[in-house]
Amino acid sequence: MTSPPPFDVDAAARARAHQAQLTKPPGSLGRLEELAIFYAGARGRFPVAPPAKARIYVFAADHGVAAEGVSPYPSSVTAAMVANFLAGGAAISVLTRASDIELRVVDVGVASPIPGTGGSMAELLSFPVRAGTANFLREPAMSRAEAELALGVGARLAAEAADEGVEVLGAGEMGIGNTTAAAAIVAALTGAAPEVVVGRGTGVDDAGLARKLEVVRASLALHAPDRRDVLGALAAVGGLEIAAMAGLMLGGAQHHVPVVVDGFISGAAALVAARLAPGVRDFLCFSHLSAERGHRVVCDALDARPLFDLGMRLGEGTGAALAINLLRASVRLQSEMATFASAGVANRD
Amino acid sequence: MTSPPPFDVDAAARARAHQAQLTKPPGSLGRLEELAIFYAGARGRFPVAPPAKARIYVFAADHGVAAEGVSPYPSSVTAAMVANFLAGGAAISVLTRASDIELRVVDVGVASPIPGTGGSMAELLSFPVRAGTANFLREPAMSRAEAELALGVGARLAAEAADEGVEVLGAGEMGIGNTTAAAAIVAALTGAAPEVVVGRGTGVDDAGLARKLEVVRASLALHAPDRRDVLGALAAVGGLEIAAMAGLMLGGAQHHVPVVVDGFISGAAALVAARLAPGVRDFLCFSHLSAERGHRVVCDALDARPLFDLGMRLGEGTGAALAINLLRASVRLQSEMATFASAGVANRD
Repeated sequence: MTSPPPFDVDAAARARAHQAQLTKPPGSLGRLEELAIFYAGARGRFPVAPPAKARIYVFAADHGVAAEGVSPYPSSVTAAMVANFLAGGAAISVLTRASDIELRVVDVGVASPIPGTGGSMAELLSFPVRAGTANFLREPAMSRAEAELALGVGARLAAEAADEGVEVLGAGEMGIGNTTAAAAIVAALTGAAPEVVVGRGTGVDDAGLARKLEVVRASLALHAPDRRDVLGALAAVGGLEIAAMAGLMLGGAQHHVPVVVDGFISGAAALVAARLAPGVRDFLCFSHLSAERGHRVVCDALDARPLFDLGMRLGEGTGAALAINLLRASVRLQSEMATFASAGVANRD
Repeated sequence: MTSPPPFDVDAAARARAHQAQLTKPPGSLGRLEELAIFYAGARGRFPVAPPAKARIYVFAADHGVAAEGVSPYPSSVTAAMVANFLAGGAAISVLTRASDIELRVVDVGVASPIPGTGGSMAELLSFPVRAGTANFLREPAMSRAEAELALGVGARLAAEAADEGVEVLGAGEMGIGNTTAAAAIVAALTGAAPEVVVGRGTGVDDAGLARKLEVVRASLALHAPDRRDVLGALAAVGGLEIAAMAGLMLGGAQHHVPVVVDGFISGAAALVAARLAPGVRDFLCFSHLSAERGHRVVCDALDARPLFDLGMRLGEGTGAALAINLLRASVRLQSEMATFASAGVANRD
């Protein structure tokens, strides 16, 4: 994995110095100031225009482990939700439409046929690596080569987006069973105990939660993933959409395009990306703290402090869409606010 | 004070039932679901369209107590910042412009002349009640009649806004010295100790903080405000912009227009409004937790849980502007998402 270019500390320092001149008490815009400074450093320039062109990729894939009853929804819901994304009826469809964010839906391994979408509002990108992962309770989720292919899909899309002038990316996902895969990969890469990373996902009951926990425990025992072999762990217990999101983050960083991370699954992908190439971390913006239990483990491992906590746990990139709005607002403030000098406002004594 | 109409629990219940049909696991949009349900109840209808027409009023006024050295900025900054609001260079100017929110700047008691603003982008509404409050360390900040006048300015503007089709209001402020007034009124109305409500405001140093604390203590000892006499307490140690914001909240509730509360000063106004007419509380949306210490006391007193905490402490309605975006997003989700039935997505087993 090629290392990303370094975060531009000089551009960030110039942004920080400019913040001190704006007509507000120093630091009074709190994390909005940090966010705009981050953006300057990630883009590698100051002054820097607010990101007009934003794009969220939602990667969809199925999980063989769903056969173990780890979700209250059937696997076919992955394909049905892809159709819903394209038709404009899903939460991420609404949020991207409301905020002038481009939405791209990518099939990297949906197992069921995707229902026709009359009057489709978005195009489906089809880069299926395989028709869903294998059930990792019994065998590796995928081969190392397949994991690399899925990473490559994300990285290539990030490069294309950068070429097309996209200034900020968001990483979202859909895949019935993917909180189980995310929990397993996070446990594998951090050494966290399964019980702190396994949560209720879309809403399993107590029996489902116990089953899910047992599946993650048994799978880790079966594959005994080595945390230094990130690709091996990803292949053993990961997911195709998790790999593709990690690739998107690697590719974004490579092209100085910051990537906004969504919640738990997207966070698991961030962990994979950062373990593959540590410099990637500097290009990631963590949107929200998910209500899914394991997200705290991910945030701790990445030293990430998400911007907000609205008790969300939907995925799809919904938190990333809201955070892109905050990022845009922060950079507009940095770009458009008057300085004490320009406005003729007396600065502090 | 006329009581506001009741919050429409039936419309809220219908919104809640609709949320359960949308293509997402129940509750997975967290507080965005609650926000949209709140909006239906406050507006008194379901279905309810997302608020297209939003308006933030920034009330500006000076404080006699600023003479005691409770702020690192001179009082003349209030007038200079009003000019900055109008010229489009302040944080609230940028945020409202970025989010299609109308900005109205209201002089309810600015003491210095407001500098001319060539190429002004917003109109100044002039309803000065008096040229700033008196120094409440020595005498009441204003008379009861003046407090009522300032309340009336806010209430009248809310009524006008409702007539003009405004669907959501935001309450912001500017006034050098106003964290001192807000701390005093919050202490007066809640009985909280001065040391838990007095903070650094725009950034006083340790000596300034000690002075501020002593000013609040001595003022409360001088006026001995009775918390059951809300108007009396407001007149004794309040501020003209605090009174006007409280009036805006009373007027908004009266007309079924929810009002988004900003941070500490705006929160102090919410406390005044809710103590004058408890039903008002149901029409308030609390945007952010301010970094200013006393805001937690306000939130506790109002049983308010702000939507986000970005470490902001600027005022002007900046947190309210961000929250109006979240409110709009939440109602768009409620309005535009497909249901399991309409999208043909299998619901949980």
